[in-house]
Amino acid sequence: MSGDHEPRERVAGALRALADDAELRALLVGSAEPIEAALRGAPASVRARVEHVAATEIVAMDEPPREAIRRRKNSSMRIAIDLVKQGRAAACVSAGNTGALMAMAHFVLKTLENVERAAIMSAIPAAHGHTHMLDLGANTTATPEQLRQFATMGAIVARDVHGIENPRVGLLNVGVEDIKGHAVVQAAHALLAASPLNYVGFVEGDAIFSGAVDVVVTDGFTGNVALKTMEGLADFIGDRLRHHFGASVRNRIAGLVARPVLRRIAAELDPRHYNGACMVGLKGIVVKSHGRADRIAFARAVSLAAHAARSGLTAHIAQALETQGS
Amino acid sequence: MSGDHEPRERVAGALRALADDAELRALLVGSAEPIEAALRGAPASVRARVEHVAATEIVAMDEPPREAIRRRKNSSMRIAIDLVKQGRAAACVSAGNTGALMAMAHFVLKTLENVERAAIMSAIPAAHGHTHMLDLGANTTATPEQLRQFATMGAIVARDVHGIENPRVGLLNVGVEDIKGHAVVQAAHALLAASPLNYVGFVEGDAIFSGAVDVVVTDGFTGNVALKTMEGLADFIGDRLRHHFGASVRNRIAGLVARPVLRRIAAELDPRHYNGACMVGLKGIVVKSHGRADRIAFARAVSLAAHAARSGLTAHIAQALETQGS
Repeated sequence: MSGDHEPRERVAGALRALADDAELRALLVGSAEPIEAALRGAPASVRARVEHVAATEIVAMDEPPREAIRRRKNSSMRIAIDLVKQGRAAACVSAGNTGALMAMAHFVLKTLENVERAAIMSAIPAAHGHTHMLDLGANTTATPEQLRQFATMGAIVARDVHGIENPRVGLLNVGVEDIKGHAVVQAAHALLAASPLNYVGFVEGDAIFSGAVDVVVTDGFTGNVALKTMEGLADFIGDRLRHHFGASVRNRIAGLVARPVLRRIAAELDPRHYNGACMVGLKGIVVKSHGRADRIAFARAVSLAAHAARSGLTAHIAQALETQGS
Repeated sequence: MSGDHEPRERVAGALRALADDAELRALLVGSAEPIEAALRGAPASVRARVEHVAATEIVAMDEPPREAIRRRKNSSMRIAIDLVKQGRAAACVSAGNTGALMAMAHFVLKTLENVERAAIMSAIPAAHGHTHMLDLGANTTATPEQLRQFATMGAIVARDVHGIENPRVGLLNVGVEDIKGHAVVQAAHALLAASPLNYVGFVEGDAIFSGAVDVVVTDGFTGNVALKTMEGLADFIGDRLRHHFGASVRNRIAGLVARPVLRRIAAELDPRHYNGACMVGLKGIVVKSHGRADRIAFARAVSLAAHAARSGLTAHIAQALETQGS
């Protein structure tokens, strides 16, 4: 129960997910008092499916990953991952320090056989619903073989967790022609074309939103830059809307009239509705929530983790990578 | 006068730029008939500053760069670049095939001394006006030294062409902490920190819009992906606005009321108002216009080229790189 805020929103989010899903149980890891306080008033039917697991410390948001592994063995993050390792939990959800979560999950759970590196995957709103993109920042470089593994894992998540049959996979590049791009994407392109995946070839950045593909594969450097660029542009457009709709009485009135429609569009693009990034390729399910997630967003991340666990995601990824060799 | 459309819009754009700038002269390179047709009706004061240079062929938008260099010696693109090489033109503006333009410009003009690779640089709307970003796709990889050269060139363009005193330069990465990123950005970070530039350090994708820096430096792969991602997201948001404001009578009325404000915001973000990407690092000025540019946008690109030529951009870049060694 680390993250940017006190645990109230995350406990409330977990309760929300439990209320929506009668088969779900939650282990809330953290210090007793704030968790007990946040649980007060929960309906008995939900409360009965919550268990508290004590943790005496937290991983700070700016703590270097290696320090966290070495020094935070009693942190809520570490204990939650340990619960997955021990088989006591089917999945771990955290809103904490991303780098530390990734490093600890790698260290404790290890990657699946035939997986060299785990990747971070998330859903991004697009013309056809959502595009699923990885790696969003777990690794700053990727070999062609690792990109192929990301593609395989991404296709399984798109199918098993998001219900997309035969997902179309694209490899992010600076052009769609076969000759485009550097040596790494060229070699990955050849591997993917020879794979059993529904590989459509190279795509450019605009394909993230166009609906042309279901899964966009890239290295964690490019993926993270693209993600932060999207977030920055969306914030910038939001600021310009607020600025101009507040610039005069006339504009403020126009803003009031347009507000219901603008709110609906903002909701469609709202990261809360697609909160939860899967760390794919580990021997266990770990979902990263946004650090600033409120209860609605955190509930989405919990539901995503539950869905991934029930669909047998880990086993399916292992199987797909075994079939394809590594 | 190649590009996605017939030359009418580009001739009209050139005339517009000439009308705004009494000292400017234009050489219009292409086949006579469509250019003469587009010139009809131009005021005499403008018409007197236009000269037609015949070209019998064009570079197709999908023509591979190497083919274009080898086979299109009589194309409008090649002749326009040759005019710069010969000193008959102070700058070349083209809305044609970007890859072919870059390759031909490299081949004919060559890079400046101390410049290993030229880069594509453009202005992107941001909270403080514009951020200037390079490389947007000329090179799919860049060494640390090349990134340092891009930073130096970018700072000179920001100063001389866009009037930004002591521009703040950021290096695009997956985090702002010194330890973040792969070996190439780590090494470039060290080179930049030791340079005379006003280097603020690593920035993430959202800094393109936040106003935190004036120049964002990255390799052409990452830069192109970020640019296309922005374009894709802006188009997607535009589509959602059109969809929702057209979804019912009530929403259509709301859309009519909000339209003046939405139009102003769209204009701020409109690529036409910042059309024109500089190919920096060459022995001559080459500006790439969007292929779909209309007259307003093309006039912007022509004015940008004129401004770059008058400011002595090429000499200043050469000087800055000489001072810094290479």
